[in-house]
Amino acid sequence: MLMAMLLLFLCSLSTAAAGKLLVIPMDGSHWLSMKEVLAELSRKGHEIVVVAPDSNILIDSSGNFTMKTYPVPYKQEEMEELLHTFGMSSFSERPFLTRFLDTWENFRKTSAMFQTACSSLLYRKELMKFMEESKFDAVFTDPLTPCGQIVALHLSIPTVFFLRGIPCSIDIYAAQSPSPPSYVPRLFSFSTDHMTFPQRMKNLLISISEYFTCSIIFSPFERLASDFLQKPMTLTQLLSHGSIWLKRTDFAFDYPMPVMPSMVFIGGINCRRKKLLPQEFEAIVNASGEHGIVVFSLGSMVSEIPMKKAMEIADALGSVPQTVLWRYTGEVPPNLPKNVKLVKWLPQNDLLAHPKTRAFITHGGSHGVYEGICNAVPMVIMPLFGDQMDNAKRVESRGAGLTLNILEMTSKDISDALKAVINDKKYKENIQRLSELHLDRPIHPLDLAVHWVEFVMRHKGAPHLRPAAHDLNWIQYHSLDVFAFLLAVVLLILFISVKCCMFCCRRCCFKKGRKSKSGKSKTH
Amino acid sequence: MLMAMLLLFLCSLSTAAAGKLLVIPMDGSHWLSMKEVLAELSRKGHEIVVVAPDSNILIDSSGNFTMKTYPVPYKQEEMEELLHTFGMSSFSERPFLTRFLDTWENFRKTSAMFQTACSSLLYRKELMKFMEESKFDAVFTDPLTPCGQIVALHLSIPTVFFLRGIPCSIDIYAAQSPSPPSYVPRLFSFSTDHMTFPQRMKNLLISISEYFTCSIIFSPFERLASDFLQKPMTLTQLLSHGSIWLKRTDFAFDYPMPVMPSMVFIGGINCRRKKLLPQEFEAIVNASGEHGIVVFSLGSMVSEIPMKKAMEIADALGSVPQTVLWRYTGEVPPNLPKNVKLVKWLPQNDLLAHPKTRAFITHGGSHGVYEGICNAVPMVIMPLFGDQMDNAKRVESRGAGLTLNILEMTSKDISDALKAVINDKKYKENIQRLSELHLDRPIHPLDLAVHWVEFVMRHKGAPHLRPAAHDLNWIQYHSLDVFAFLLAVVLLILFISVKCCMFCCRRCCFKKGRKSKSGKSKTH
Repeated sequence: MLMAMLLLFLCSLSTAAAGKLLVIPMDGSHWLSMKEVLAELSRKGHEIVVVAPDSNILIDSSGNFTMKTYPVPYKQEEMEELLHTFGMSSFSERPFLTRFLDTWENFRKTSAMFQTACSSLLYRKELMKFMEESKFDAVFTDPLTPCGQIVALHLSIPTVFFLRGIPCSIDIYAAQSPSPPSYVPRLFSFSTDHMTFPQRMKNLLISISEYFTCSIIFSPFERLASDFLQKPMTLTQLLSHGSIWLKRTDFAFDYPMPVMPSMVFIGGINCRRKKLLPQEFEAIVNASGEHGIVVFSLGSMVSEIPMKKAMEIADALGSVPQTVLWRYTGEVPPNLPKNVKLVKWLPQNDLLAHPKTRAFITHGGSHGVYEGICNAVPMVIMPLFGDQMDNAKRVESRGAGLTLNILEMTSKDISDALKAVINDKKYKENIQRLSELHLDRPIHPLDLAVHWVEFVMRHKGAPHLRPAAHDLNWIQYHSLDVFAFLLAVVLLILFISVKCCMFCCRRCCFKKGRKSKSGKSKTH
Repeated sequence: MLMAMLLLFLCSLSTAAAGKLLVIPMDGSHWLSMKEVLAELSRKGHEIVVVAPDSNILIDSSGNFTMKTYPVPYKQEEMEELLHTFGMSSFSERPFLTRFLDTWENFRKTSAMFQTACSSLLYRKELMKFMEESKFDAVFTDPLTPCGQIVALHLSIPTVFFLRGIPCSIDIYAAQSPSPPSYVPRLFSFSTDHMTFPQRMKNLLISISEYFTCSIIFSPFERLASDFLQKPMTLTQLLSHGSIWLKRTDFAFDYPMPVMPSMVFIGGINCRRKKLLPQEFEAIVNASGEHGIVVFSLGSMVSEIPMKKAMEIADALGSVPQTVLWRYTGEVPPNLPKNVKLVKWLPQNDLLAHPKTRAFITHGGSHGVYEGICNAVPMVIMPLFGDQMDNAKRVESRGAGLTLNILEMTSKDISDALKAVINDKKYKENIQRLSELHLDRPIHPLDLAVHWVEFVMRHKGAPHLRPAAHDLNWIQYHSLDVFAFLLAVVLLILFISVKCCMFCCRRCCFKKGRKSKSGKSKTH
C-alpha cells in the first residue's frame, strides 16, 4: 500500500514536471541531431509532437514522439533531384559568373520549396486547429526556415531555436549580438579571425552586401509571415522573438566572438558516446593491421561524383597503406585499389572513435567536422558548398587538417594531403589538443540542450535573457540621438560664447573708440 | 596485492590530475565566496597556496590550503578604522560636493592601501622566489586589485579571475566585450536597462567620464605593474591576459548584455545549501509564531550606525508583528521594541532559507542580494555605497523589493516599505519568480567555477577563448581604416568620373565651338 502511494506520488510529480513540446524541424542532417534531443526529452516524460511535410528525406517516425504530417505540392523525388543537382554542381568547372548564378538558382529553388512547405502548414486548417487546441508549452525548431517561429507567434508560445547558423548572420542580428567585421569572419569570407587589411575589407563588404542579398532570398518568407500574422515583419524581427538559441557551435572550433546570454553552445552534440562497431566493419578494421584505416565520406547529400573525379580520388587512395572505408553509392571507379572498400553507409562516429582510424576525408559539413574533432582524427577536407569551405578553413587554421579544392585537386594533391595528415605528427597533436579542449566541458551538450528546452517549457520562455536592445531602434542603439543632442549643446555653447566674446570685444572697441574719439576731440 | 596495485594506480591517476594553484585573494566578503571554491578544489586533490598580507580583516587559514603571508606597512586596526569611516560616512548628511570629495578620498586611501600591499608582495624577494620555484599551474585571483595578474605575468602562468565587477567596466573592456551605453547601465547610473533619453545621456556621459576618473584612480597600479614588469601597461592591457572571468553575476538579477565566451557566470555561488539553524536562532524563529521573522543586516562593513538613525529604524521595526533579527554591533537604541532581537552575528543564508522568513532588510551588497534571491525573500534595501544602489535598482525594477534612501528615510518610510514587502503579495510572487529562474540551472555555480579553474590548470589557459580583437588597435577594431580606404576609393572614382565627364563635355563644347566658329566663318 505504502509502495503504491509512493509510486502514485512519484507519477504525479513526473506529470507535473512534464511539458508539451511542438517540434517543427528542418530536414537533412539538421534533423539527425535534433532527434537525439527529442529522444532524451521523451525519456524525461515530455509529450512531443513533430509536425513535418509528408514529402521529406530524413525526417522519420519514432516511438519518442507523435508525428503529424501535412501534404505539400512536391514529391520526395523532386527534393532528391534538387539535392542531386546541388551536389553534382559542386563538381562542374564553370566560369565564376555561371557558378554564382547556378548557386543562386539552387538557393532560390530550395528556398521556394521550404516556403511552399511552410505555406502548406500555415494554411492547413485542421492541423493549425489541432496545434491551437493542444496548448503546447514551447516550439522547438530550426530557424533556418522560420516557419516554426511564425507558428509560435500565432500560438503565442515561446520558441527554442536549434541551429548551426543562418545565412547573412541573421541569427546574430536577431539575438542582438554584436559581431564586429574586423575579427568575426562572415560566411563565405573563407577567412580566419586574424585578418589582413584586404581580408578585413572583404569581410566588411560581405557584411554590407548581406543586407541586400538576404533581403532578396528571404523576402518570400517575410511576405508569408507578414500576411499570416497580419503584421509587417522582417526575418530578423520575426526571429528576435526566440527565447533560447541552442547553437551547434563550440569555440574549440569556431572563433571566439561576442555572444548573448540567450545563446547556449552545444557544438559536438551529435558526437555520441562510442558504440560497438557492426560485425562487418569490425572485421575490416581488424584486418587493416598496423596501418589502420581512413574514413571517407562526402556526406549524405552527395550520392555520386563524376567518374573522372572518382578515378582520380581512387588513384590517390591507393597510394596509402591504410585501408580506406569510402561511403559511396555512385558507379564504382574501374581503378578502385584493393585497399579501398566502398560501402553504401558507414557508422561514421563509431569508426572515427576507433583507435585504428588514422585520418578522415570529409566534405567539411559541421556534423562530420565535430565528429572528427571529438574523436581527434586529423582531416582532409574537400568542401563542396554552404559553410563547408569556412569549416575547412577553421580546421586548417588550427593545424588539424588540410583543405583541397574539389575542382582543382589532382590525384597527387589528394595523396600528398592524406599522407601528410597521417604521417606528420603535428596534425594528430593539434587535433588531439582541439579535442581535449572541446571535450573538457562541465556538462554534455545533449544534457545542456535538454535543460534549456525544459527551462523554456517550465518558465514559458526566458524573459530575463531578452536584452533591452530589442526595444531600441538603430539610432537609439548606437546613441546617435544622444551624440547629436550633445553636439548641438556644445555647438550652442560655443556659438553663445563666441557671440558673447564678440559682443564684449565690440563693447571694448566701441568704448576705446569713443574714448579715443573723445580724447581726440578734447585734444582738438 | 591486486588491491594495493589498484590503489597505487588510482593514486597516480589522482596525482596526475591534481594541479598547483596560487591564490591571491581580495579581502572582505569577496574572500568568503572564494574560500568556498578553494574548499571544493582542495577536496578534489589540488595543492593550493594562498598568498595574503599579514594584516587583513577576513582572510583566514584553513586546512584546505597553505597560507603564506607577507608583511605590510599598515595594521589591521588601520584597515578597520578605514572601513569604519567608510561605513559611517554613508550616514552623514553633507552637500553633494563634500560627499563626492569624501568618497573620492576614501577610494584613494583604500586604493593606496591595496597598492602598498601589492608592492610589498612584489618586492618581497623570498616569497617571489618561492612562487617562481613552486611551478604553479595557474593563478586564481580577484582582479579588483590587479596584483594577482602582475604576479601571473611575471611567472608566465595563466589566470582565472573571480569577480563581481571592476569600476569603470574595466573587466568588460579587458575581455573585449562590447557594452553599448544605450542599454547597458553603468555603475553609479542607478538606471535599469530600459532608459529614457536623459538616462541614456547620463549613462553615456558616465561611460565617457570613466576614461578619465579610472585612469586617475588606477594610475598607481599601472605605474607599479609597468615598473615591475618593465613594460608600460594600462590596467585594461594588464587584465586582458586573464584566461577565464568567473563573474558573480546572474541574468535573473543583472540585465542581459553582450558577453564573451571567456566569461562564466556564477552569480549565487555564495548561496549554499541550507544547513540546520544553531539552537538559539531556531528557538527565536520557532517562537515567532504565525507572523514569522524579518532578517536585518547591513553587512560586515557596517558595525554601527548613528544613534538617531538607529532609533528611527528601531521605531519602524516595532510597527510590524514579525520578530526582527537584527545583526548589529553598535550601541543599543534605547527605544528597541520587544519584537527586535539584536545579535552580533547571524547565519544569514540559513535564516533566509527558513520558511518563516518574511522579509530581508539589507544594504544591497551583491552577496546578500543573491541570498535573498535564491531563498525567495522580498527585500527592503538601504544602499550605502559602491554597487549597492545599482543592486537595489535591479531588485526594485524586478518588483522584488523596495529601496530606501539611508539619509532621507523616516521611521514611517521604513515601516511602510517593510509592511509593503511583507503584506503585498506581488513582492513575494516576483522574488519567487526570480528565484525560480535563478535556481533553474544545469549546473551549480560552485561546480562551474571549480570546473573552469581546473580547466585552466589542465590546459595551461584557455587560448581558444581569447578573441582576436586583442590583436587589433582601436582604429582596426572599428574598421575605421577600411572605411577610410573605401571612402578614398569612392572619392577617387567620383573625382575621376567628374574629370572624365568634364573632359568629355569640354571636348564636345570645343568641337561645337569650333564647328560654330567655322560655320560662322563660312557664313561670313
